[in-house]
Amino acid sequence: MSKHLTKRDEDYSKWYNELVVKADLAENSAVRGCMVIKPYGYAIWENMQKELDRMFKETGHQNAYFPLLVPKSLFEAEEKNAEGFAKECAVVTHYRLENDPDNKGKLRVDPNAKLEEELVIRPTSEAIIWNTYKGWIQSHRDLPLLINQWANVVRWEMRTRLFLRTAEFLWQEGHTAHATKSEAIFEATQMQEIYATFAEEFMAMPVIKGKKSESERFAGAEDTLTIEALMQDGKALQAGTSHFLGQNFAKAFDVKYTSKEGKKEYVWATSWGVSTRLIGGLIMTHSDDAGLVLPPKLAPIQVVIVPIYKGDDQLEAISEKVDVIVKELRKKGVSVKFDTRDTYRPGAKFAEYELKGVPVRVAMGNRDLENGTVEIARRDTFEKQTVAIDGVVDFITNLLEEIQENLFKRALDYRANHTTEVETFEEFKDVIEHKGGFVLAHWDGTEATEDKIKELTKATIRCIPNDSKEEIGTCIFTGNPSTKRVLFAKAY
Amino acid sequence: MSKHLTKRDEDYSKWYNELVVKADLAENSAVRGCMVIKPYGYAIWENMQKELDRMFKETGHQNAYFPLLVPKSLFEAEEKNAEGFAKECAVVTHYRLENDPDNKGKLRVDPNAKLEEELVIRPTSEAIIWNTYKGWIQSHRDLPLLINQWANVVRWEMRTRLFLRTAEFLWQEGHTAHATKSEAIFEATQMQEIYATFAEEFMAMPVIKGKKSESERFAGAEDTLTIEALMQDGKALQAGTSHFLGQNFAKAFDVKYTSKEGKKEYVWATSWGVSTRLIGGLIMTHSDDAGLVLPPKLAPIQVVIVPIYKGDDQLEAISEKVDVIVKELRKKGVSVKFDTRDTYRPGAKFAEYELKGVPVRVAMGNRDLENGTVEIARRDTFEKQTVAIDGVVDFITNLLEEIQENLFKRALDYRANHTTEVETFEEFKDVIEHKGGFVLAHWDGTEATEDKIKELTKATIRCIPNDSKEEIGTCIFTGNPSTKRVLFAKAY
Repeated sequence: MSKHLTKRDEDYSKWYNELVVKADLAENSAVRGCMVIKPYGYAIWENMQKELDRMFKETGHQNAYFPLLVPKSLFEAEEKNAEGFAKECAVVTHYRLENDPDNKGKLRVDPNAKLEEELVIRPTSEAIIWNTYKGWIQSHRDLPLLINQWANVVRWEMRTRLFLRTAEFLWQEGHTAHATKSEAIFEATQMQEIYATFAEEFMAMPVIKGKKSESERFAGAEDTLTIEALMQDGKALQAGTSHFLGQNFAKAFDVKYTSKEGKKEYVWATSWGVSTRLIGGLIMTHSDDAGLVLPPKLAPIQVVIVPIYKGDDQLEAISEKVDVIVKELRKKGVSVKFDTRDTYRPGAKFAEYELKGVPVRVAMGNRDLENGTVEIARRDTFEKQTVAIDGVVDFITNLLEEIQENLFKRALDYRANHTTEVETFEEFKDVIEHKGGFVLAHWDGTEATEDKIKELTKATIRCIPNDSKEEIGTCIFTGNPSTKRVLFAKAY
Repeated sequence: MSKHLTKRDEDYSKWYNELVVKADLAENSAVRGCMVIKPYGYAIWENMQKELDRMFKETGHQNAYFPLLVPKSLFEAEEKNAEGFAKECAVVTHYRLENDPDNKGKLRVDPNAKLEEELVIRPTSEAIIWNTYKGWIQSHRDLPLLINQWANVVRWEMRTRLFLRTAEFLWQEGHTAHATKSEAIFEATQMQEIYATFAEEFMAMPVIKGKKSESERFAGAEDTLTIEALMQDGKALQAGTSHFLGQNFAKAFDVKYTSKEGKKEYVWATSWGVSTRLIGGLIMTHSDDAGLVLPPKLAPIQVVIVPIYKGDDQLEAISEKVDVIVKELRKKGVSVKFDTRDTYRPGAKFAEYELKGVPVRVAMGNRDLENGTVEIARRDTFEKQTVAIDGVVDFITNLLEEIQENLFKRALDYRANHTTEVETFEEFKDVIEHKGGFVLAHWDGTEATEDKIKELTKATIRCIPNDSKEEIGTCIFTGNPSTKRVLFAKAY
C-alpha cells in the first residue's frame, strides 16, 4: 500500500479511512461491517479501558458479564426498546452445521437443528440484564446495584465506517438500579460527568455536556444525557451517553424491592456506555495530513528513540546512552520504544512514527554522541530541538504534559472558532452548509420543527447544553418563543 | 436461598453447583447453557486476566480483536478444524426481526432478511484470524506475529455446567505465526510453560505438563500441549492448551512469506488458550464444605475487617484503629474491605466471607480495643489468633503468603496421594473406579487401545507427561511393549 495519505481538505472522509488503515489501527474484515482491530488500535482501546475502568470502580461500580445471546421474547418486554433495537440485529436460528451431502467439503445449516426460540446477538443488554436483576433485587439492602460490563455488541448497520459505525463493536455498558428516582438521576449525571472528564483529560477532546431532545433519546429512556464533540470537518460526534431509564425496565421485567418501610416499589434505573467509536473521535480531533496525532495519556508508545548510526560500534555507543534514558523514563511510567531494527533506515522509521502519532521522537546520532545531546521532535507541532542528555528525562516528561495540554487547547480553539450563534434560519443554513461546526440557535421545543430542520439541512439537535443559559428568544424556524439555545450540527 | 451447602462427600457435583451460586460467582441465565458471571466471580476472572496479560506482554505478545462472526465458508478451508469445531455452533441466518403481524407485541424473524451466507459465532478464531493474517504477512520482517485476543466464544454444548462447560465462555486465544518450525514449537512450549507457572504460582493449583495423544489433539493441530490439574473428587481438569499447528492453517489460507533468501515459504503457527473454566478449576482445587477457599493472589478481597460493637461510640473508636490498618495494607497493595454495614450482624458477616473464601478475616471488638489487639482468622485452616495491633500489617502480609503456599502444598499433597502407578488392567480399573485420581500406566501408543480403555473405564489419556522417564514396560491393556508411562484419569 502506498504511504501517501490523502490530504484532509481534499477529502476528509478518504483521509480518515486511509489513516485508520495505514496507521495500523484497524481494517475491514471478511464479514460485512465488522472490523479487525489491529494491535496498535487495540492498545489505544486498552489505555482507554484502563482509565475508564478505574473511574468506574472509584465510584463504586463492579464489572460482571451477561450472555451474548438474548432470547427474542425478552426483547418483547420493553416495547420502545424493542422498537429501537431488536429490529436490525443478528439472529441465531440454528445450532448446527453439517457436511453438505451435495457439495463435498462444504458445510450447510442442519435443518434439524432449528432453535425453538430464536436468539438475538445483543445490540445492547438492558433486556437480558433486567431479566437477571429480577432475581438479584428483593430488598432495599440489595440497592444500589452498580454494574458495568465490557463487551461486544452487534447492530446490523447498513453503512459502516471503521470505528465510527460498525456492525460489531466493543463497548462498556453500565446498568444500575436504585431505590429512588433522585439517586438514579444522580447516577446518570455522575456518569456523564465521568465521560466528560475522560474525554477532556485523557483524549484531550473538549465536549459539550447536555441532554438529548425527545426524538434523539435512547429507546426506553426518560432522559438521555450526552457528551458531544466537534470533529475537524465541522461535524459533531456523539461520544458517550448516559440514560435515566425511569422505571421502564423495572416495570417491563417486574423488578421490585421492599423498602425500609416494608413497601414493594419498582426500582429506578440508568444505563450508560462508550464504545470503540471513541477511537474515531480521537483520530478526528487531533490528527493531521502527516498522520495520526495521539495525546500522550492514551498513546501506546509515548516516546520513540531512533538511533542513527553506521556500524555496530556506533550503535553500541548510542545504545549505552539510550539504555539509561529508557530505564529512567520507564521508571517514571513513560512508555518508550527504542527502535534498533536494522531492517529499516532512520528516515523510514521517522515516517512510520509520524504516521502512527507517537508524541515524542528522540533521535541520537554520532554528532549527538560527541556533544552529549539528543534531537527531540514533538509530533503535534513538528518542532525539533537539540537537548543535552543531562536532564533529558525531565525535559521529555514535561514535554509530554505540554503536548497533552496543547492538543486540548488546540481542539478547544477549533471548537470556539466553529461554534456560531445564529438568529435566523437563513443564517443557520448558511453556517451549516458553508462553515460547519456547532450552531447555537433557539428552537421552539417541538419534534415537528426539529424534523423539518433536519430534513432541510441534515443538521440535528445534538443536545440541550447543560450550561445553556435562560434567555428570551424566538425559534429560528417557526418564530415561536424559546427560552434557551440548543446545539445543532451535522453529525456522524 | 438456604445458606446450607451440600457436603462434598455427599454429592461433589451438587456441592460445586451450589457453591458457585451461593458464593455469588455465577448463575444460569435465561439462555440455555449460557451463564451470568456475577461481580464476585468476574473479579476473580479480572485478576486472572491481569496476571496472564502481563505474562503474555512480557513475552512480546500484543492484543488485538477479530470479528465475532465468521462466514461459514472460512470454516471449510481447514478440514479437520471444520470437522472439530464448525458443527455444534450458533448460526446466524437472518439480520432483522419485525413485528409479528399475527401477534401484537411479538417479534418474528423477517423472512426477507436472510443472509446470503450464514455466519457462525466463533467457536475459536483460527479461521477468521488466518484469513486476516494472509494480508498481514508478506516478508520475514513481518514475523514472528505474536497476537492474543480476549474474547467470548460459543460452542453449542449439550450438557453444560457453570464455568466448566458453558455454551458461551470467555477466554483468551493466542495466535502466532513464525518463519520456522522450531520457532513455532518453541512458542507453543513457552506458552504451556506460562500457563503452568500461572496455574501453580497464582492459582496454587499444581499441574502436569504434557502432550496430548493424537486422538485428544485440537482439531487442526500437529501437537497439543496441555496442563492437567487434579480436582478434589479425583477427576482431572484440562486447564489450558497450547497447540503447534504446523503449516496446516498457513496452507488452508495460503499464508506465505518471502524469506531473507527471497524464497516463498508457508509460515508456521501456534494457538493457545485458557478460559473461564479456570475458575471451575480454582474452586475444585481448594474449596471445602464451608464454601470457597481462594488463594490470596487471586482473591478479589484478600482481607476483610469486621467490627464488633455496640453503639456508634464503639464503632467510631474501632474505626479509628482500623482505618490506619486499612491504609497501611492498601499501601502494600493488599485488597481490604472494612465491612461497617449495620444491616448485618458480625456472625452473618463471618459466614458470608467464609462462604466467599476471603483468605484473612480480622475482627475487632471492645476487648480488642482495650488490649490493643485484633483477632485474625485464616480461611484455609480456620485457625484463629489474637495479635497485637502493632505489627499487624506485617503479620497479615506474611500470613497471605503463608496461605498461598499452604494451599499449593495441600493441593500438591492431595495429588501425590492420588497419583498411582499401575502395572495391570485389573489394578487400573480398580484405581479408576474406587480411588480416582491420576493413574500412570504403560500404553502401547495406539488409538485402538486408548478407545477401548475409555470405553471400558471412562478414563482417558490426559497427557504424555513431559517428565515421564523412559522405562521398559508393557501396555496394561494389550501387553505390547511401551517405553513410557502416560497419565490417565477420568476428566471433566
